Amino acid sequence: MSSRIVTISRQYGSGGRDVGRLVAEQLGVPCYDKELVFKIAEKSGFDVSFIQENGEYAFSRSSLLFDLSVHGGMPAGSLSVYDQLYIAQHNIITELAEKESFVIVGRCADYILKDRTDCLHTFIHASVPFRARRIVEEYGEKTDNPEKVLRDRDSRRQAYYRHYTGKVWGAMKNYHICLDSSRLGVERCAKFIAEMAQI
Amino acid sequence: MSSRIVTISRQYGSGGRDVGRLVAEQLGVPCYDKELVFKIAEKSGFDVSFIQENGEYAFSRSSLLFDLSVHGGMPAGSLSVYDQLYIAQHNIITELAEKESFVIVGRCADYILKDRTDCLHTFIHASVPFRARRIVEEYGEKTDNPEKVLRDRDSRRQAYYRHYTGKVWGAMKNYHICLDSSRLGVERCAKFIAEMAQI
Repeated sequence: MSSRIVTISRQYGSGGRDVGRLVAEQLGVPCYDKELVFKIAEKSGFDVSFIQENGEYAFSRSSLLFDLSVHGGMPAGSLSVYDQLYIAQHNIITELAEKESFVIVGRCADYILKDRTDCLHTFIHASVPFRARRIVEEYGEKTDNPEKVLRDRDSRRQAYYRHYTGKVWGAMKNYHICLDSSRLGVERCAKFIAEMAQI
Repeated sequence: MSSRIVTISRQYGSGGRDVGRLVAEQLGVPCYDKELVFKIAEKSGFDVSFIQENGEYAFSRSSLLFDLSVHGGMPAGSLSVYDQLYIAQHNIITELAEKESFVIVGRCADYILKDRTDCLHTFIHASVPFRARRIVEEYGEKTDNPEKVLRDRDSRRQAYYRHYTGKVWGAMKNYHICLDSSRLGVERCAKFIAEMAQI
């Protein structure tokens, strides 16, 4: 395919992970999502649960609080475990990009691979009611307030992205294709992205 | 078609107008762009040149300056000519939406028609080099600094949009489909939008 790599960024609950899986199936390439967590664990020595919890989420909804917490009290020149994890992820993603074609979901891959010309960068978003229903019915979130869970997750992704890239998460100009899965449907989003990756 | 109306918002030079024309051709419906200016002129009594200059551009790049200039010195309760023009455009667009299917380019139509469920809202953006080349070679802009022309036009569209809608122009969440025409090509953007409008 012309775009050897497809990056999929997504709002929580939008079905971006399913879009990624379907695009990868249609292109016949691996989809790095949870599989990447195991690769990172293997190479970095970090626990899978630590990577899942901290590999693309700030632990605070505030970017400033996250910045201060990650670096506050650290000796000058030393790296926090969060920074070490980001660097490990960064290195694995850039190494994979040198070697093979794939679809990758999240993990700032759009930013990490932004200077390559063989990537198609996409973003999946959706309405709040669509996402609220999905996280309860399909992801099994146990909550009385799914809207709050959505706000919290997306704010923590946003804070993480801003901390490590200096950019605004979800700014249209960083993506070639941005689609509303609640309007278009997960399957149609995947079909279009796969088509565009092959041109 | 399921989406009776397609709104196309666009960065200056991105080819959004061409996308609109092609989508309308594929759907067999009118494309309201310059044609709308004549309709507005006919109904409102404003000059065509006044509508073209002020129908979607603030005369300042600063939203605040535009706000102050439009309303500064106006007696309480009275409307500036800019407000009158916005209201005329608003009324014509909502009246058309009641009567017929169409594609419409710009003019805050995404916001004006946001509560209808039969609209597909789209945004076309593109890289600066692609747009700079297009405005000189295809739109015939006479300038030594096309990048400055792009910044100026988009800032004035942004200020206008913020003034009349209270929203951020080009925020992904307001659109079902956002496409980078410099990566995907104008024809492919149009083809996908037309397909999605028919579903």
